[in-house]
Amino acid sequence: MSGAGKLFGVGVGPGDPELLTVKAARVLREAPVAAYFAKSGETGHARRIADGYLGPDAEELRFDYPYTTEVPKRSASYREAMAGFYDRAASDIGAALDGGCDVALLCEGDPLFYGSFMYVNDRLASRFDVEVVPGVSAMAACWSRVGTPMARGDDCVSVLAGTLDEDPLLRRLRQADASVIMKVGRHLPKVRRALDRAGLLDRAVLVERGSMPDERIVPLRECKDGEAPYFSLVLVPTARTTS
Amino acid sequence: MSGAGKLFGVGVGPGDPELLTVKAARVLREAPVAAYFAKSGETGHARRIADGYLGPDAEELRFDYPYTTEVPKRSASYREAMAGFYDRAASDIGAALDGGCDVALLCEGDPLFYGSFMYVNDRLASRFDVEVVPGVSAMAACWSRVGTPMARGDDCVSVLAGTLDEDPLLRRLRQADASVIMKVGRHLPKVRRALDRAGLLDRAVLVERGSMPDERIVPLRECKDGEAPYFSLVLVPTARTTS
Repeated sequence: MSGAGKLFGVGVGPGDPELLTVKAARVLREAPVAAYFAKSGETGHARRIADGYLGPDAEELRFDYPYTTEVPKRSASYREAMAGFYDRAASDIGAALDGGCDVALLCEGDPLFYGSFMYVNDRLASRFDVEVVPGVSAMAACWSRVGTPMARGDDCVSVLAGTLDEDPLLRRLRQADASVIMKVGRHLPKVRRALDRAGLLDRAVLVERGSMPDERIVPLRECKDGEAPYFSLVLVPTARTTS
Repeated sequence: MSGAGKLFGVGVGPGDPELLTVKAARVLREAPVAAYFAKSGETGHARRIADGYLGPDAEELRFDYPYTTEVPKRSASYREAMAGFYDRAASDIGAALDGGCDVALLCEGDPLFYGSFMYVNDRLASRFDVEVVPGVSAMAACWSRVGTPMARGDDCVSVLAGTLDEDPLLRRLRQADASVIMKVGRHLPKVRRALDRAGLLDRAVLVERGSMPDERIVPLRECKDGEAPYFSLVLVPTARTTS
């Protein structure tokens, strides 16, 4: 890899541009090439967060996701389209690296925690030098905004997908001292039912667009919505009290 | 609370001072009072991280933990001593807030995720305005340094305490797609046995002092140590492969 550029997976945090790390700010300022994923027709969440940090001469590599609305993610055609999409992104980013340029790939939250960065990393890590700059996760931003202690002492915390079926979700909720449910979206009614059955509905808080300007925080018991926006999650903080 | 100062719980991240957020850097620069916890006789981990960020005229409120080595945490005397310690810290911090000064309480990692900040927050949140600045967690710094994708797609991630008994630990490890085991320390042999019984030993990585100068990363199968340092955790990344 002599002469080749270095790939930085840069966590830009949950939404508020001030929640980027000092290191991420430096890497973005110095990067000759900034790459990012975005929904077609939109600025892109990660790109918007990074707006004030990119160098004035940075070349931008934008990759539009092939889907803009939710499609069945278990379908072969979805998986194929996404694999092809990441193949092309990795190929373009690889070309810039081969040309000797460092590339900063912008990642919402933290790059290795449910991030799209991983799919590029999978394709390039064997050929190029890669450095990951961790970021503040969406869940940390959300519980900070709620202001409720999430986990104390020897608590076990489960990070669960709202896409799970109701019974497995219920089982996992019962076993944890505290939980975060990601990917709530249209699964909100099922998530609410599982929390109610687990006796946890009174502790659950829905946070939409945490740390963003149009943030909304609502106790789940009071929320009658049929679905939640893409950037939303449910927190079930620990019941353990202070020492 | 008119005229009183505001309490900031400031996540200073996992160890590398560059992994502080831009917001944390600003809050520390502006804070007239910086408070922190430390082991007696040491600089204090959070204080060391914040070193380059505090304003030159910041007043410092230092609180020495009553214990410097591990004592039985379930004992009544430990709980009592810690409660008294946090009572005194909250009282001193409350006095500064009552005097009209904002106070930045430095917290390793993220303030509401296993942080000592919570015990002060419990005592002061009803009387003062509190803002939490989230931080990069130790676990995110660790998996970024390892460079392995931690969770993808609909994975469920468990954050577990190494203090759990072997069988409950085993059960929880088996149920998760990916796990983080905190508080490994002298529980390392038990943690290794539980991972071995779960068939996860080959995926497990021990990270000591992640993002700090004396960081050490070692596949757990190859590590024969009887214990791990305080700042260490075990990662079991997802087995899910790329799309």
